[in-house]
This record gives sequence, C-alpha cells and structure tokens, in this order.
Amino acid sequence: MNEFVDFYGPWLVPLLGLVALIIGYVIYKNFMRFSPGEAQIAKLGDQIHRAAMTFMFRELKVMSIFTVIIGLLVGISPLGWPTAIAFFVGAIASAAAGFIGMYTATKANVRTAVAARDQGATQAMSLSFFGGSTMGLAVASMGLLGIGLLFIFLIVYATADAEAGATSIEGFAMGASVVALFYRVGGGIFTKAADVGADLVGKVEEGIPEDDPRNPGVIADNVGDNVGDVAGMGSDLFESYCGSQIAVMIITATMSAGAATALLSIDAPAEYAQSILMLLPLLLTSLGLICSLIAFGVVKGTAHLDPSKTIQYGQAAASIVFMILSLILTQIFGISIMVWLSIFLGTLGGVVITIVTNYYTNGPPVRMIGRSGKTGVATVIINGFAVGLQSIVFPVVVIAVLIFVSYAFAGVYGIGIAAVGLLSTIAMTMAIDAYGPVADNAGGIAEMSEMGPETRKITDKLDSVGNTTAAIGKGFAISAAGLAALTMVLAFIEVIERSYPGFTEGISVANPMVLAGLFLGALTAYFNGSITMRAVGSTAFEMIEEIRRQFREKPGILKYEEEPDPEKCVAIAADGAMKRLIWPALLAIAMPLGIGFVLGAQALAGLLAGALISCAALALFMANAGGAWDNAKKYIEEGHEGGKGSEAHSATVVGDTVGDPLKDTSGPSMNILINVMAIWSVVMAPLLQPQPFWEQQGDTESAGIHTVIDADMLAAENSIEAGSIFTVMNGDALQANSDVKTEDNADAYTAESSAWKHESNEIKYSAPISVLSGQYRLPSITGDLLSNGTFIFPPDNA
Amino acid sequence: MNEFVDFYGPWLVPLLGLVALIIGYVIYKNFMRFSPGEAQIAKLGDQIHRAAMTFMFRELKVMSIFTVIIGLLVGISPLGWPTAIAFFVGAIASAAAGFIGMYTATKANVRTAVAARDQGATQAMSLSFFGGSTMGLAVASMGLLGIGLLFIFLIVYATADAEAGATSIEGFAMGASVVALFYRVGGGIFTKAADVGADLVGKVEEGIPEDDPRNPGVIADNVGDNVGDVAGMGSDLFESYCGSQIAVMIITATMSAGAATALLSIDAPAEYAQSILMLLPLLLTSLGLICSLIAFGVVKGTAHLDPSKTIQYGQAAASIVFMILSLILTQIFGISIMVWLSIFLGTLGGVVITIVTNYYTNGPPVRMIGRSGKTGVATVIINGFAVGLQSIVFPVVVIAVLIFVSYAFAGVYGIGIAAVGLLSTIAMTMAIDAYGPVADNAGGIAEMSEMGPETRKITDKLDSVGNTTAAIGKGFAISAAGLAALTMVLAFIEVIERSYPGFTEGISVANPMVLAGLFLGALTAYFNGSITMRAVGSTAFEMIEEIRRQFREKPGILKYEEEPDPEKCVAIAADGAMKRLIWPALLAIAMPLGIGFVLGAQALAGLLAGALISCAALALFMANAGGAWDNAKKYIEEGHEGGKGSEAHSATVVGDTVGDPLKDTSGPSMNILINVMAIWSVVMAPLLQPQPFWEQQGDTESAGIHTVIDADMLAAENSIEAGSIFTVMNGDALQANSDVKTEDNADAYTAESSAWKHESNEIKYSAPISVLSGQYRLPSITGDLLSNGTFIFPPDNA
Repeated sequence: MNEFVDFYGPWLVPLLGLVALIIGYVIYKNFMRFSPGEAQIAKLGDQIHRAAMTFMFRELKVMSIFTVIIGLLVGISPLGWPTAIAFFVGAIASAAAGFIGMYTATKANVRTAVAARDQGATQAMSLSFFGGSTMGLAVASMGLLGIGLLFIFLIVYATADAEAGATSIEGFAMGASVVALFYRVGGGIFTKAADVGADLVGKVEEGIPEDDPRNPGVIADNVGDNVGDVAGMGSDLFESYCGSQIAVMIITATMSAGAATALLSIDAPAEYAQSILMLLPLLLTSLGLICSLIAFGVVKGTAHLDPSKTIQYGQAAASIVFMILSLILTQIFGISIMVWLSIFLGTLGGVVITIVTNYYTNGPPVRMIGRSGKTGVATVIINGFAVGLQSIVFPVVVIAVLIFVSYAFAGVYGIGIAAVGLLSTIAMTMAIDAYGPVADNAGGIAEMSEMGPETRKITDKLDSVGNTTAAIGKGFAISAAGLAALTMVLAFIEVIERSYPGFTEGISVANPMVLAGLFLGALTAYFNGSITMRAVGSTAFEMIEEIRRQFREKPGILKYEEEPDPEKCVAIAADGAMKRLIWPALLAIAMPLGIGFVLGAQALAGLLAGALISCAALALFMANAGGAWDNAKKYIEEGHEGGKGSEAHSATVVGDTVGDPLKDTSGPSMNILINVMAIWSVVMAPLLQPQPFWEQQGDTESAGIHTVIDADMLAAENSIEAGSIFTVMNGDALQANSDVKTEDNADAYTAESSAWKHESNEIKYSAPISVLSGQYRLPSITGDLLSNGTFIFPPDNA
Repeated sequence: MNEFVDFYGPWLVPLLGLVALIIGYVIYKNFMRFSPGEAQIAKLGDQIHRAAMTFMFRELKVMSIFTVIIGLLVGISPLGWPTAIAFFVGAIASAAAGFIGMYTATKANVRTAVAARDQGATQAMSLSFFGGSTMGLAVASMGLLGIGLLFIFLIVYATADAEAGATSIEGFAMGASVVALFYRVGGGIFTKAADVGADLVGKVEEGIPEDDPRNPGVIADNVGDNVGDVAGMGSDLFESYCGSQIAVMIITATMSAGAATALLSIDAPAEYAQSILMLLPLLLTSLGLICSLIAFGVVKGTAHLDPSKTIQYGQAAASIVFMILSLILTQIFGISIMVWLSIFLGTLGGVVITIVTNYYTNGPPVRMIGRSGKTGVATVIINGFAVGLQSIVFPVVVIAVLIFVSYAFAGVYGIGIAAVGLLSTIAMTMAIDAYGPVADNAGGIAEMSEMGPETRKITDKLDSVGNTTAAIGKGFAISAAGLAALTMVLAFIEVIERSYPGFTEGISVANPMVLAGLFLGALTAYFNGSITMRAVGSTAFEMIEEIRRQFREKPGILKYEEEPDPEKCVAIAADGAMKRLIWPALLAIAMPLGIGFVLGAQALAGLLAGALISCAALALFMANAGGAWDNAKKYIEEGHEGGKGSEAHSATVVGDTVGDPLKDTSGPSMNILINVMAIWSVVMAPLLQPQPFWEQQGDTESAGIHTVIDADMLAAENSIEAGSIFTVMNGDALQANSDVKTEDNADAYTAESSAWKHESNEIKYSAPISVLSGQYRLPSITGDLLSNGTFIFPPDNA
C-alpha cells in the first residue's frame, strides 16, 4: 500500500475523529453551564451519576484483567503482537467511548429536569438531546481514531502486506467485543434487575408510583437506564460499527486484483483499486460523522417543535445528506456506481427497519394488545407474543433482500459496504438512542424531587418520545449487528478460503458438519436467551428481598419519616450483573473456540450461520414484543380502555414487566453474542483447519497448487496404468473406470465432479480436496490427500 | 428391481399392515363390550363423539376439494400420474388413520370413566390405553399398507427404474402432509380456542370448576382434546413416519452402486444392495410394529401398577426389543453393522429426548416456576420463558450428534435410517399419545356426570400421567419431525444434484442465495407461529363472546335451571379452525413453491435449512415452556406453595393459559410446516433449476457430460490461442493467463478452483457450472454456459 505514503488522505480520518471529540467536549462544556438545580436535586443527580460511574469502574476493573489475559494470549499465539495491540486499542477505545458518553449523559439528566422546570420544553429538549449526543460523538470519534490510526500504522506505513495489516486490525473489533460483553450484557442485567425489582415491590406490592423517592430501588433503576441504554447500547453499536468496517477491509484484502478493479468505474491499476476499496469504509464513516453533525444542527434548529418531529427531521437529514454525499464521494474516487447502490441500499434498509419497528412498537398492534388487556393478562401476553413473532417478518425480508441485491451489485464487498452504509451515521443514531435514557432520568429526577405536574408534563413528553426511539433503536441495533456479523462471517469464510481453496464449496448446507453446526448455532442463541433471563430473574429477586427488608425494618420510609438506603440496591444490582454476565460471556467465547478447534472450520461456519439467523430472529422478536408491551401499558396509561388502575392497566403492567428483560437484556445480548462469535472466528481463522481435529493428520502445507509427491506410489497402489486418462464422476465411476481399489467400509465416498488425470505415472487432480473433506472419502489415498487439506494438481504441471 | 419379482418379501409389509388393522378392530370390538354408562353419561359421551366426528367430516370435505385440485395439478404436471395416485393414496391413508383412531378414542373415553367408577383403576387404565392403541395401530398399518403397496407396484413390479418409482412414492408423503395441515393445524386451533375460551369465562370469570357441565364450552373443550391430540398428533407423526421412510428410498435410489454395496457386510451385487437398502425402512417399520404389539402385551400385563410405570415398561420393551431385533434383521440381510448403529442411535436419541423433555416439563424447573408464582404472574411467565429457551439445548445437541455420528457411520443413508429407527415403534408411541386425551376426556365425563370423588381420583391419576406423556410426546414429535424433514431435505438435495452435478457444493452458506434463504426460513417459522397464535386468539374470543352470551341470556344455566347450548360452541371452534387454518397452510405451501420457482433451488435449500433449525428450536421452546407452565399449575393444585386459590395458583393459571396455544397449536404447527415444506420441495425437485428464474436462459439440457458446441466461437471471442492449456484459479487469473475479456461490470465473478483446458480450439472445463451460478459469473461466456445449468467438458473428450 505504498501509494498511500505520499497521500495523506487516511490521516483525515483520525483527525476528524479528534475534531468530533473536541466538538463533544464543547457540547459538554456548554450544557454544564446549565444549573444542576438546588441542593436536594443536585444531590439526586449526583447520586445517579456516582452510582453509574462506580458500576462502570467495577466493570472496567474486571474487564481489564480479562482483557490483559486475552491480549497476552493473542500476542504469544501465532496471531502475534500487532493483533494483540489492536485488541488493546479496541478495548480501550470502546471503554472510553462508553465512559465519556455515560459521564456526560448522567450530567445532562438533572440539568434537563431543571431546565424543564425553569426554562420550558425547548431548552429541555435541546439539553436532553445534546446530553446524549456526546455519546454519539464519542462512539464515532473513537471508531475513527482507533481504526484510522491502526489503518495508517498497520496498512499504510506497514512493511507487511495489506492482508496481514487487515488481519491485525481485526484485533480492534475483538477488543470492542469484550467491552460490549461487559457493558451491554452486564448493563442489561443491571438495568432490568433494578427495574423489575423496584417495580414489583414499589408499584405492585406497596402501591407507590414509579420513581417515588421512598422506594430504595429507584436510584438503581435510574442508574440502570444509563449503564444499559447509554454505555451498553453504545458498546453494542460500536462493535457493529467497527466490526463491519474491519470486515470490509479483510474482504478487500482477500479479494483478487481483477475483482477489485471490477469495482471501479475508472481504469486504474489494481493497487489503487484495493487501496481505495479498503479505505472506503473509513471514508464513509467519516462522511457519516459529518452528516451527523449537520443533523445535530437540524435538531438544534427544530428543538421548539414536537420532540418526535425534531428527532425525525434530524434523522432524515442525516440519511438523505449521507446518501447524496456518499454518491459524490464514490464518484470522486472512481468507485463503481454499483458500490454506491449497495451503500444506498444499506442506508435505505435502516430507514425501512425504523419504520417497521415503529409500526410494531408504536402502531396498531400496540393498541390491539392494550385492548386485549380487558380479557386479562393471558391475552395480553399471548397477543404480545404473536405481535413479536410477526414483527420479525419485514426486517428479515429487508435483510434478505439487502444480502441478495447488494451481492448482485458488488459481490461480497457489496454486502459488507451496505452494512457500513447502514452504520455510517452512527453519531446521530447513537445520540437519539442516548437521548432516551437522559429524558427518562430527567423524568425520574423530576418525580423524585417533586417538581410538580407542569415539569412532569414536559419530561413525560420527552420520555414518551424516548420510549419510541428506544424501541426503534433496538430494532436498528439488531439489524446492524446482524449485517455486521454477516459481513464478518463472510470475511471469516474468505480468510479460510485463502488457506484452503475450495472451503467455500465445502460448507454446503448438505454437509453434516455444517448442518450440525446450524443446529448448534440455534442452540447457542436460545441458551444465551435463557441464561440472561435467569440472570435478571435472580438479581431482581435479590433486589426484591432487599427492598422488602428495608420497608420492613424501616417502616418510617413509607411515611417519609426515614431515609431509604438506595446504595444497597445499587450494590445488589451491580454484584448480580458482574457475577452473572460471566456465563453469557463464556458462552459467546467458548462456542466459536470450541467448535472451531474441535469440529473444525466447516462446523464453525454452520454454527455462525445458525447463530446469525437465530440471534437476529430471536432478538427482533424479543425487542419488539417487549417494546409493544411497554407501549401498550403507556397507551392504557394515557387513558384508553379504562386508563390507570383499570383491569386492562394491571394486565399491561404485567406485560411490560415480562417484556423488560426480553427487550433490554436478552434481546440486546443476542447482538453481542453473534458479533462476539463472528469476530472471534475471524481472528482465529488463520489457526483453524476445515476438518474436525481427529481428521487433521500430517503437516499443513501452504495453500496453492501442489503436485502430489508420491504419484508413483499412489498409481502403484491403485493399479493405475501409466498413460491412462480418465474422468471420475463419482466413487463407483472411479472404481469402474480406473480400477482404483476402495476399502470395504469406504461407505461414504463419492468424489463427484472431480476430474482426475493420470499421465506418465503421475496422478492429476483438478479440484480442491477440501471439497471432499468431511463429505467424501477416498480411502486408499486418504493419508496423503486429506492430510494437507487441499491439493490441486493442475494439467499444466504435466 | 426385478430380483424382487421372485421374492415375495415385500408383500409381507402390507400384509402386516392388514394384520395390524385387524388387531386394532379386535381391540375395538373388545372394549366396545364395556358399558358406556347410563343414559345421561352415554349421552355425554355421544355428544363428544358426534361433535368430534362432525368436525372431522367438515375437515374431510374441504380437504377433499383441496386434495383433488392438487392431485390433478400434480397429475398433469411433468411429475405425472403415478405421483398423483400416490398423493391420493397418501391423503386417504392419513385421513383414514385419523378417522379410525379418533372414532375409537371417542368411544373409549366414556367407557374408561364408567370402568373407573364400576371396575376400578386397573380396568380404567387398560381401557384408556387400548382406546388410544387403535390410533397407534391405525397409523402404523396405514403407513405399511400404503407405502408397502406403492413400493410393490411402483418399484418391484414397475417397468421404470427404481429412481422413478421412489420419486412417485414421494406423492404419498405429500398427500399425508396435506391431511396433517388440516388435522394438526385445524385441530390445534380448535382445541386451544375451545380450551382458552371455556376456561377464561368458566374458571376465571364465573369461578366454576373445569369441566363443569354448566359451562357451554366444556363439550367443545373435550372434543378439542380428540381432534387436536388424537387425530392431529396422529397425522403429524404419520407424516414424519412416512416422510422419513420415503426419503430413505429416494436417497437409496440416487445412490451410486459403489456407495450402496459399501453399506453391505456381505459381497453382493449392487442390485441386491440397492434393493435391500430401499426395502430396509419398510422392514424396520414392520419390525417396529411387531415390537409395539409386544409392548401392548407388556402394558396389558402391568395395567395393575401405577399408570406411569405401566407406560414406561411398555415403552422400554418396545425400544429394547426393537434395538435387538433390528440388529438381527440387518445381519440376516447382510447389511453393514454401521447401518444398524445408525438405527440404534436414532432409537436411543428418542429415549434421550424423552428423558430430557420429562425433566423440563415434569421436573425441578416446573417446581421452580410454581414457586415463582408467589411473586406474581410476571415472574411465572419470565421463568417459564427461560425454562423453555433452555429446554431446547439437550434435544438440539442430540439432533446434532445424531446427524454427525450417523453420517460418519453410513453417510446420508445413515441420517435417514436413524430417523426411521426413531419412528419405527410408532404404534406404541402413538398409543401412548392417544391415551392422554382418552384419559383426559374420561376425567371430563366423570366430572360432568358427577361420578364422585372416588372415580375422579382414578381418572385424575390417569389424566396426570396423560399430561406427562402428552408433553413428552410433543418433544418426541418435534424431534421426529425435525429428523424426518432433515432426511427429506437431504433427499431433495440429492435429487437436484442428479440433474445438476455440483449443486451440493453450490449451496454453501457463503452463497448469498443460501444466506437469504436461511433468513427467509427463520421468517417462515416465526410468521407461522404468529398466525397460528392469532388464530387461537381470534377463535377463542368468538367463543368467549358466545359463552358470555349464553350465561347472560340464560341466567338459569348457572343455577342448573336451564340447559347450556354446547353445540353452538363446538360450531364456533370448528368454524374458526376451518377458516383460520388456511393461512398457515398457504404459508407452508407457498414458501417452498415461491422460493423454489422464483429464486431457484439454491435459495430453496437455504430456506429449508433455515426453517428446519428455526422450526425445531421454536417448536421445542413452545412445547416445553407450555408443558412446564401446565404442570406448574398442576403442581400448585397438588397443594404446594399455597395450593388452589392462592396467589401462586392464579399466577400459574395465567401461565398455563399462555402456554396452551404455544404447546398445542403453534408448536405442533411448526412440525407440519417444516415437513410440508420439505416434502413439497422433494416432489418439486425435478422441476426446479438452481438459479433464480431470471438467470435461467435457454433450454435445459439433460445432465451429464457435455462438450460445448461453440468452442471455436468461444475461443475466438476470448482470444484463446489454440493448443494453450491453462488453469483458472479465479476471475483475474482467467483474465491474466488467457486473455479472456470480462465485461466492465462483471464485478462478482471469481471462477475459483475450476480447471479450464483449451486444446485444438476446444475449451475444456472440468467443474460443474452450477457451482458457479449465483456465485460466480463469467460474463463473456455467460449465455452458453449458464443457460444449461451444468456443463462438464472432460479431458477425455479431447
């Protein structure tokens, strides 16, 4: 990639990342000038802030041990130190993004509440959005800084080739995936355990309102929103964002020169094609960041409108400007319009998924669930379940069409770049996602500090929009994670294909290794769902016991005569989350490692494909069912079907409680699961062999074209006459035409569609043997052929 | 298969089927000698019997129109009349089995109740079991009669070859699949709409006990047990039973002679190998029938023990005797021990799944759910959900291991024969399944006719065992359906592979058509779950309205002063079921047809694989969660955690209601969905092309080895010099080495691992082009190469 050395373009990427970070700081400084309220209010805000940061420090502490161990293992493994360094950088970048975002978000919540009371709706809207926007900027800038700098040092100025560089950068996404496991899965357990625990004792048992200051669990609940939906969501999107960019780089690196030039609209050397295609993801995400900044301006300018309108305008601005500018960008660099069409499709796919998710979590199905509350809890649950199942239909169609069409446009690269397109305006997407918890917290603080109905009305409005954006954000995050993981899976296959040509044909869905892998992939998704739900249940149970204990031992709390002890509840949620995130984390890491090294890369490919579709479908189902139940409750609370206190209301409250761990813990953990499995597989790929370990005999030779060394021996063993030329269509044709002896129990061999040629005592074989492995067996020559994974004996070696 | 003409062995199969039918008739006559009770009781029994038969006649009426239309379309299509005739035979056989089984089961229920009152537990147990056993015998005998006779006429005495015969027999399974759609999906909607409707108004709103004669929905509820769990379950297992046998025949027919002889332990000609391997499924199921009859004897002899013991002994006897006899059978016919090991594994897999299902629906997880009822409905739902998700882990591992190991033993044939082994003792399996509803109905009749607590105690015991067997039966049915469908999917792939060599390698999970198909397969499963749940909800709602109307308009009903009108409720459940089974039926048929003809067989293979894992996982989750909720309620009702009337009880009642449509409608409909999709794909396979329809240009030539007609033109077009020999490793190598021109936008071609050879102005190509389709593109020669699906230019044509 030496043509880059004189071209300073790539430096623009981390530079832009730095600029975004500075803008984030300016935004932060700006809203810090607003008042955090009087002593009592400021104390509440501070309590939430400190508790959130304390939990994050605990996560960081455990995570750093975990990260150091893995990083060292990676470093001393054949993957090497560049990958290990990228791994550390990725972990630090993701952790830092979450830290910055949550730090500022927990400063913005209380200021939003005070602004709502003192300055009205417009200022409150502006503060809550820009409080979340720093998280968006942090995610985008950490991605650009991290990947951008690694790109420059490992690819542009590297002595090794581009493929080795791209391979090392994978470590970055792997580092991000470890942080996501902690932030998203741990945060998810924390938030829902706190929510369910606080609600079940407070609202259901004691009949006090949500966010009532007497409830000892209420601070933990508010903290949960931040650790789950700000830091957790951020690390989730960060992982998809970086994973898809890096996967595209790997795909480009493994691409042939001809395929690369075919993606250009100009006549340029292959070196240029590969360089620009590898840089394109970074250029697109840089562009996306600029578009997000434009969208921030739109939000600022329309903050006086209805909050849902403000957000819609901002989002539309980001998408439309990105579509236009990316067209110009690709044309400037002489990239084929087909590539842009893929990017366009990816962006459009995001918009469609947004609309569909909005329909299911905010439209007629929600009202149907609300109405069904009149016939009791059971019908609410059944209907929500049915809505959730149905809600996956359109997003999955979108994903299928995206795969199919973007592939038709630009091959595997097209699929990858579509995923990057979808995620490019992440700063805006994430800002909207983080806006929700800020608004929610503001409402909580307003309630806890009794700011009165006028303030509460403003924060309720903000919160209700936040609820909708949260539901939509989840649908988007799942689709993004699905596409990013898919891109990584394709990159994984390409990497193995480089070492074992024919691997791609070998992972047919008819291959029993792949079939078994597909089933195990589904299993992984369901098992993950189960353990994360149980984690919430167990932690919530501990929380319930604690809250009950406080009410029992200090009866004065309910009469406002004694102070509750919220720290205790925060500690329980934090302990439970830290303790119980281990199992999902182990599952996510152990499955690809175990299957990859024990059953081989073929089974692993099946595992990834099975987990991919199962995780995407289950996560969409869980997120949308949960969102629909949540909003059905809100719908009743708005006064429909009897309103608050009616039978329909208590039925939908149960629905909401059931949906909570689905949408905020298990569903999101599916995103992490599939991304972790995919990225770890990509990183491990160079160490894997296609077959199960017990079929891996002999040394592994490097891939390429080989001539069998002992052709004479083989020919003698197989009684092949010198000079005979024959075609093998399948096992018995082999036997019939060439008199090759097969062993008695060689039951499963059919060397279909392989062409063998024997001339002057040499055997020539012109199809990759890896096609055969696991599926076919040629017994009398097994030892030599299968041991090397792949052998190609071309006619021109005659 | 002319070596069969002098060997009358195959005739034993239908003969045994006939004998089983006669035994079933004797059993029927035998229990008909028992008293149906006094006028009032007999009337109740008769009401249930007539209502069930009326519903079945309605199903049969609509089904026959549907069947005739499809049969005619099949007949005039290239599939031909033999397939159409097999289709009709299959539909009639399945319909008849359900008819016989349900007719006798609804005669046995009332007699069981009376026997429980007058003759005690042993006689009641015996009657309820043998009342169900006729359904078991009907299923097994209809299978043996139908497939046996078709085998004799279409294969043994046929003028055409074995493959054509096996292809026609597929029609039988297709016919069975249509009946299963009506019986199982229609029956499933009926039974749960009636159950939920009757319970919600009766138990919840009016506070009257289950099966109270005042409840107008109670007859419909009892009818539902029969149409759902007797006829429905029977048609479900019948489909898997026949589907797996026929798939094995197809796999054998498409097998090469060498592969077939490799599965023998003796030295015999390939003709013998193919014949005996093709006959083996029928021999095994015949043997399984004999083992089931032995098991019936064991049940008869141990009827005085605890009912759960009786059933366990019977089941164990059937499995163990089958394992031993099948070993002897395979050795007599000189079949490799590896084949028997696959059969053994299949049978063992069934046993393991039974144990695991019992654990999750009857073990500690159930008590955990029950206990969690103390913290309310939400925790019951969440915990049941988590248990359901977790419960799929072991069954899926069993399936994955079965696939992997039985393939290692005996290739694709091994996977198929393992599925046949699992299903061989179907007469016993089905007898146990049908025992449940008979016992349940007996309890209902005892309650409705107020036979007193002593009788009720006996029927309760029978019913509780029936509940366990029902839950286990569902787990078994899903695994069986999954394996049967898997076998059919593999048969489908083998069939296409015969026409398009290389198809198997083409359906890599890296192929975007396959990936898109995988996602669409998951979609199909979820969408099916959604529409079946909605169907139950809507029908139950109509039922609730009707029951409320009756209570409102005839207030005397509750005071025993007026008669309820149960027929009205039966009619509503029947109308709802008939109207709403259309959508799942259409989905099951339209998806494979649509994807197969529009996107091609590659996408269809992906669809089937995606639907297979999604249906299996979802169905297991639904069945086990539902079973666990059901039994958690029973656990509370036994007096634990506060017993009946406690908060935990009402929480688990909601859990049970939520679980009902999951376990009895949506879950089972997944079995049907995947089996219908798989068998229709197999039948359609000869009409399909690998590529999407817009890439299918020109005529389809028959498969085999072709030499390109216009090699000169191609060579000229591509500037290939005569005599040059080159190897194409991928698209750019093609370009670099041979100067083949590629079109500008030929972005996606990489003809990896294909060997081209050019000699004396002819181009030789030694890999199947179908590997390329969808994945690779060779633009300048697209027209001629892709148009024919497959071209192989072997070196020996030089």
